[in-house]
Formats: sequence, structure tokens, C-alpha cells
Amino acid sequence: MTVNEALNAFKKHQQIMSAYGHLMGVVSLDAATAAPKGSYEGRGQTMGIMSQILYDLTADPKNHEVLKVLEANPNELDPQTRREVEVARKSFDQLQRIPAEEYVAYSVLLNESEAVWEKAKNENDFASFAPFLEKIVEYNRKFAGYYNAEMKPYDALLNEYEEGLNMETLDAFFAQLRSVIVPLVDKIRQAKPVEDSFLSAHYPVEQQRKFSDYLMEVMGLDRNYCGIAESEHPFTTNFNNKDVRITTHYHEDALASSMYSVIHEGGHALYELGCDDIYNHTNLSGGVSMGIHESQSRFYENIIGRSHAFIGLIFPKLKELFPEQLAGVTADMFYRAVNKAEPSLIRTESDELTYALHVMVRYELEKQLIDGTLAVRDVPAAWNRLYQEYLGVEVPDDTRGCLQDSHWAGGAIGYFPSYALGSAYGPQMLHFMEKDLGDVMDLVAKGELAKVTGWLREHIHRHAGFYKPDALFEMTCGKFDAKYFTDYLTNKYTKLYDL
Amino acid sequence: MTVNEALNAFKKHQQIMSAYGHLMGVVSLDAATAAPKGSYEGRGQTMGIMSQILYDLTADPKNHEVLKVLEANPNELDPQTRREVEVARKSFDQLQRIPAEEYVAYSVLLNESEAVWEKAKNENDFASFAPFLEKIVEYNRKFAGYYNAEMKPYDALLNEYEEGLNMETLDAFFAQLRSVIVPLVDKIRQAKPVEDSFLSAHYPVEQQRKFSDYLMEVMGLDRNYCGIAESEHPFTTNFNNKDVRITTHYHEDALASSMYSVIHEGGHALYELGCDDIYNHTNLSGGVSMGIHESQSRFYENIIGRSHAFIGLIFPKLKELFPEQLAGVTADMFYRAVNKAEPSLIRTESDELTYALHVMVRYELEKQLIDGTLAVRDVPAAWNRLYQEYLGVEVPDDTRGCLQDSHWAGGAIGYFPSYALGSAYGPQMLHFMEKDLGDVMDLVAKGELAKVTGWLREHIHRHAGFYKPDALFEMTCGKFDAKYFTDYLTNKYTKLYDL
Repeated sequence: MTVNEALNAFKKHQQIMSAYGHLMGVVSLDAATAAPKGSYEGRGQTMGIMSQILYDLTADPKNHEVLKVLEANPNELDPQTRREVEVARKSFDQLQRIPAEEYVAYSVLLNESEAVWEKAKNENDFASFAPFLEKIVEYNRKFAGYYNAEMKPYDALLNEYEEGLNMETLDAFFAQLRSVIVPLVDKIRQAKPVEDSFLSAHYPVEQQRKFSDYLMEVMGLDRNYCGIAESEHPFTTNFNNKDVRITTHYHEDALASSMYSVIHEGGHALYELGCDDIYNHTNLSGGVSMGIHESQSRFYENIIGRSHAFIGLIFPKLKELFPEQLAGVTADMFYRAVNKAEPSLIRTESDELTYALHVMVRYELEKQLIDGTLAVRDVPAAWNRLYQEYLGVEVPDDTRGCLQDSHWAGGAIGYFPSYALGSAYGPQMLHFMEKDLGDVMDLVAKGELAKVTGWLREHIHRHAGFYKPDALFEMTCGKFDAKYFTDYLTNKYTKLYDL
Repeated sequence: MTVNEALNAFKKHQQIMSAYGHLMGVVSLDAATAAPKGSYEGRGQTMGIMSQILYDLTADPKNHEVLKVLEANPNELDPQTRREVEVARKSFDQLQRIPAEEYVAYSVLLNESEAVWEKAKNENDFASFAPFLEKIVEYNRKFAGYYNAEMKPYDALLNEYEEGLNMETLDAFFAQLRSVIVPLVDKIRQAKPVEDSFLSAHYPVEQQRKFSDYLMEVMGLDRNYCGIAESEHPFTTNFNNKDVRITTHYHEDALASSMYSVIHEGGHALYELGCDDIYNHTNLSGGVSMGIHESQSRFYENIIGRSHAFIGLIFPKLKELFPEQLAGVTADMFYRAVNKAEPSLIRTESDELTYALHVMVRYELEKQLIDGTLAVRDVPAAWNRLYQEYLGVEVPDDTRGCLQDSHWAGGAIGYFPSYALGSAYGPQMLHFMEKDLGDVMDLVAKGELAKVTGWLREHIHRHAGFYKPDALFEMTCGKFDAKYFTDYLTNKYTKLYDL
């Protein structure tokens, strides 16, 4: 095989895999947003068949030959192709180690488990979900060995979502966060409480939908390339850089819930929409890692979306859409309400300060599940104990406890820590952004979010998967230092609560 | 290859094709209901790649070997498998004749042309759609030759949608309809006009959505297996007999529009939901032909949905949802309004009596487009002339003229006649249904639609693609005779207009 033949086969293979990814992605989106509840069996059959086909396509020995030819001739490849080869090699080696029947069985299991989890959550019935979670944990433990037998199993899983991340780093990172967050939370307990009852007035779904449209407009999300739908759990999915979808979930008694999920998912969507065209239909398309992705979503959700400047900008629209619900409420009161720091039950609705504590609970449980020191049946009790210990709250049921997130049902173990990491990247990015743009909050106040997104696009978005996540971050922001984050939290909450 | 090996390969192949069909179907559904407008390019790339893969899968010479083994051993096959082999043979032979690159190019063309058509329709810009329609006509003319070089090209296309249907039959059928419908329409012109202005009061979309849910409930559509979404043009799609979706389009100034599209698509959905499980994931799954499918949808839409009994049944709900819009309106007035017979512009919103005249316009144009006596650029003028001739109406623009239907943009030439055929099957089915169930309108008045659907399920739905369409119809209703239909129309409209 000549290098040119290998190159053609390699590019063609990526296009084919991208086409399959597109199809499967749309089916998953449909399953979460529009499909009738009883449709999962037929979808399971289809997904099972496709998993086998995808497995065969990826594990095809011909790919190995192609890769070997390309790896033997690095100087004949342009830099993008070299990186594509590197990424392809990683996937190929990993998949090679997973027996086809396990891969297919796991895909079928996940399709079913997501439906079972949703029902279990709605009915507060952990027992019905437990057998699925047991199998998922078992598969993940096994897969960890396939991914990297040298690493501790949980490290191997972490490394899947964020290359280079491990328990050593995370233990230190979380300890540092705890040392700042816990004392702040204690001081806030003594401070004057923030009034936020108006956020749980009645906010009709129809009006909230209009508000979502407005938020997407303010964020500069081009509706020609970005859709919004409704699902149990908000998420973002992308098929290429001109077809991105976000979802939200409306609660009529909680305005901030959908509001901040739209801004959060909108941050993910801006990342996907901002990737350069040259990466479409290659294995470098889309955001590079979960941590970097979360840095973008949480930058928008918290640093922008929960700023005084942003609330000031959007407050007239809020008053227009919800005149009765917000009668007598000022922009400053609204700002304080959406920043109320209070240990609570639900991660996705928690405040910016206590959020990382929610992540730490999941991190501790995942570590123990994977190393075998925690049995699945004991998850609810362990969950409730850690919520008491880290957040000081009593968990009343599993619906608001260990069944609240879809991640485990979807097979994602080792994913949660990237949420905390993503949050922590933000203030460091802001610091370097301000070196270029000056006072960012001044831009936000004027509605000039295009400049903020432009900076993120230039330094992060456009590169898609071309650089490794740590390299991408360091190119612009230097070595990661959690102190930017802890300083940011300390400043923000000291001022807000007058501590 | 043993018969058993061939059988296994054959069944496996069908499951794989069914899985691909499922994926592609969901992508098409998403494209029509949820996808952002600008997403079609990326989808086109994916669909192009998948068309090639599907072509290769279907045209694979191994399939031919498998088929030959099975065809040589008919006695070792159960009747269902024999029919599956027959259907597979037909597809295989057809596809064999279409060169791969034409098949793929055509798929890509259709993906693009649907987006172009939608824009052209909205902007009354036939010229922008014309080059696409030209290519589509050209492909269809060529494909007709591939399908069956012995037949006249348009007959070969008709035969694709309804096995055995040809121009000779249709010319006679349409002549018979015209001889009854045209005089009736003339008499109605002289009769006292029906008052229907209340149907174009303001009907908010939100309330109409609730009404759709109610109609689906009345029809016995199980929402666990049947979803509803919104699209430019209403349609039904199915992925298996436990995952069926209907779509509708709400017009705030036209209550009957979405109401009857929901009932119509609901009729299609009942058919799909009623297919026996044994046909899932085989090439016999789903309704057998367009004509039979339309017989089910139009049976529900017109014979049931536009009956006095049905209006009486649902009228309390209508009054509850739209008290102001329907103030002073009685069930009888509503019945007369939704049956108002009046030559009009839009096929999908036309009445039961003049509907077939709309179909005849398309039939005449398609015949001429395919035999080359009509150029695409002359379609608008020819369309307008025929609307004047058959319906006596002036077409004000192409949006309400030759751009109104999505069918041609989707490549469906030869499809329209099955609409008229489907309408005509209904009254003959009703006749035989009443032999078993007694007075059907009595059941409808009591809300016992399950009995009506039960009869249709027993005689039509459950058989899916097992029998050929004409055999399926004749098993229960004897030879098709259009007189049942013309008698039904004559009786209904003579009474309604007191002719």
C-alpha cells in the first residue's frame, strides 16, 4: 500500500465513521426528546446491530495496515493528518482490546438502562435500576483494564474523558477547593439570607420557551445551525459544526432551572459551532475533551450568566415576559437570587459555590465502586452520608439523591470530575481574556458578547480536537492553577454576602 | 451453501437493512421536524455516504446467491419467508439495474431538493426549484426503464407504488369519477352555500395541540408507541410497529387543517401499529402499498372523521377548547362546515368531493412530464390551466399552485394516483365492515372506534406486507369497484346540500 492509498483509505474511513456517528447521534437525540416511551425495544435492536457493524468497521484489520503505513511516514503527512492518525491509533488500540460481543452487549445494555433509569428516577425506585448499574460498573471496570492495564482502573476511566487526568491530581485539586469552599459556605450560613422566593413563582412553559429563544439570541447562537428541544435532562449534541442541538427542561415553579441550563448548553453549543470547517467529518471534529467543554459551558453559565452585568442586560426582557412574577423585583435582587449560595440536593440546580461539592460526592462514590469497596446496593446510603458530610443536607429520597443524574445510566463513569475541572478553568481564562479585551463585564453589560465568544473561538473553539486539552489550555492560559478559581469564588461571595 | 445457511444469511440481512432503515428514517423525521434549517449540507454528506453503503449492501452478489438457493427450495420455506424472498428478489433486481453512482447521486439530490423546494414554496419562486425538478424527472424516467423496460415509463413508476396499477386502469377510473363528481360540483354551485366562516376564527396553536392529543386519544392511538410532531407538511413514519410518528402543521386561522391532518395521519399510524409483530425487522414490515395505506388514512379522515356521528362525538370537546370561536355553532353546523364542497386551490385542504380532481391534475402533469410532452419550465402554466379546467379556479401564485406538495421534491412521481385510489377503496370497505359490525355510524356515535379499528386490523393491518395489495383488498371486499365510492359521494352530498 502506498502512502497515498493509505491516506485515501484513512480519510474515507473517517468520513464513514462520521456518517454513522451522525445517524446514531440523531437517533439518541430523538430518543431523549421526541420518541414515544415504549419505543426503546425496537431502538435497542437497531442499536445492537449498528454497534456490531461499527465495531467491525473500527476493528477491521485493514485499518491497522493503513495506520501502520501512515505512522511509518510521518513526514509525508500534514500536521492535521498526523493528529488524526494519533487519535485513530488510540481508538483502534482501545477497541482492539474490547471483545466484539462485550462491546455490542454493552451498547444494548446502555440503551435499555437509560429507559429503566428514567422510570426508576420518576418512581424513586433505586432497586429497579441497581441491576443495570451493577452491570455498567462491571463493564467499566473491565473496560478500564482494556484501555490501560498499567493504570489503576479508575485512572484509566478518568483518562478517557480528560487525557492525563488521574486521582492524584484530583485528590489534591478537590482538597484545595474544599479548603476554600467549606469555610465560605460556613460564613454564608451566618450571613443575611438572600431573598429568592420570586424565582419559584409560576412561570408558564410557553413564556419560558420565548425566554430561551431570547437567551439564545443574546448569546449569538445562530438558529439556522442550532436547534433547541426538550428532554428530561438537558444536554448538547452536535452532528457537525453547522448542526448543533441543545435541550432544556422546563419547570413551571423554577425559572432559573431552564434559564441556566439554556445558557450552560448554549456555551457548549458555541464551542461546537465555532470549530473550524476543516475538522468536519474527521475524528478531530467537535470539542476536544469534557473538561474543556465544561469550561466553555460553565464560563457562560456562571462567569457571564451569573454576573451583575449580564443580569442587567437581560433584565428588561425578563420584566417584559414575566411582569407579574417579577413585580417589585430589581435587577440587583435578581442577581443576588440567582447567586444564592446554599447547600442543596440537586447538582444541576446548585449554585456556583457549592457545585464542586456535589461533584466530589460522585467522585468519591465512583472511586469506591470501581475499586470494589462499595457495592451498588449500598450506593443510596453512601450517597446520603456524603451529602450530609460535604453539604450538610439530608437526602429525602433517591429521586433527589443518587438517581438524579443520567450519567451512570449512560455508562459515563469518570466523567463528573471534568465538571469541576471545567468550572475551575473559567476564571483563569477570564484573566487572560481581559489582557486582550479589557474589562469583560463592561462588554457584557453592553451586550457585546460577540467579543467574548470571538476570543473563545480564537483561542479554544476553532481548534476542535487538534491540540490535546492540556496543551490547548496552556497555550493561552499557562499552567492550570486552581487559585484563579478559589480567588474568584472568594471575591465574588465575600462581596455578595458582605462577609 | 445449504438452505439453512442461506436462510440465516437472508434473515440477518433483513435485520441489518431494517436497522439502517430505522436510522435513516429517524434522520428524515428529524430533518422535517426539528433540525435547524442550515443543517442540510452536513446531512446531505451523511446521506450520500449511507446511500452508497446501502447500495453496496443490497446489491452485494452474495445476496443473489442466497436468493437463488432459497428460490430453488420453495418447499423448505414457510409462507412468510417465501413472500420475503419474493419481495427481496424484486428489490434486488431493481437495484441491480440502477448504477451505484446514479443511486447515490439521486439520494444526495433529493436531500438538497427538499430544502430548496421548501424555500421556493415559501418565496413563490418556482424558478429556483425548476432545475431540481428537471433532474428528478430525468432520474425517474431513467429509473422507470431500470424498473421495467417492457412497460411504458410512467406505468413502471405507478407500479412501484401500487403493484399492478397502470395508466389504462387509471384513465378509466378517473373518467368514471369525473362523470359523477363534475355534475355534483355543478349542482352544488347552485345550492344554498354552507356557512363555514367560524372555521377560520383565531385558533391558538397551544389549544390546537391539546385538541390533537384528544383526537389521538379518541382514535385509540397509544401514545406509548405513537408520537406527534410538527412539520411543514404532515406525514406519518414508522420504525417498527411499536414506534410510529405522525406530524401535523398548525394554522391559527384554519382549525380544520390540522384537525383533519391528525385524523388522516392517525389512520396511517393505526395501520402501522396494527401490523403483526412477526413482520418487524423483515422486508414485509409496515403497510403493503401506498393505495392501501391511503385507504386507511382516508377512511378515518373522511368516512369516519367527516361523519355526522363523529362530529357529534367530539363536539363537546371542541366547545370546551374553543368556547369563543364556536359560540353559537351547533354540531350540525360544524358537520356541514367541514364537509363544505367547493373547488379550491390546496389539495390537502380540499373537501372529500373535489379531492380526486386535485389528484387528476397531478396525474395528467406527471404523465406528460415523464413522456416528455411537458417541459418542467411549463409546469406552472399547465398546472394553472388544469386547475381552471377541472376545478374552475384561478391559481394566484405557485406557492398555492404547483409548489404546494413536497412529493416531487422528494422524488415521488407516480405516487399521487394512489391517493384517489385509497379514497375510493374506503366506501367498499365500509360496505363489508357493516356486514360484520352492523351500523358503523352507530358505533362511531358511541365512541366505539376500537371496533372499527379492530375490524380494519383483522382484515388489513395485521397482514402488513404479506399479501399483495390487490389480493389483500379482494380477500375481504371482492373486486374493486369504483361505484361504491361514486354512490357514497352522490348520497352524502345530495343529502348534505339537499340537491
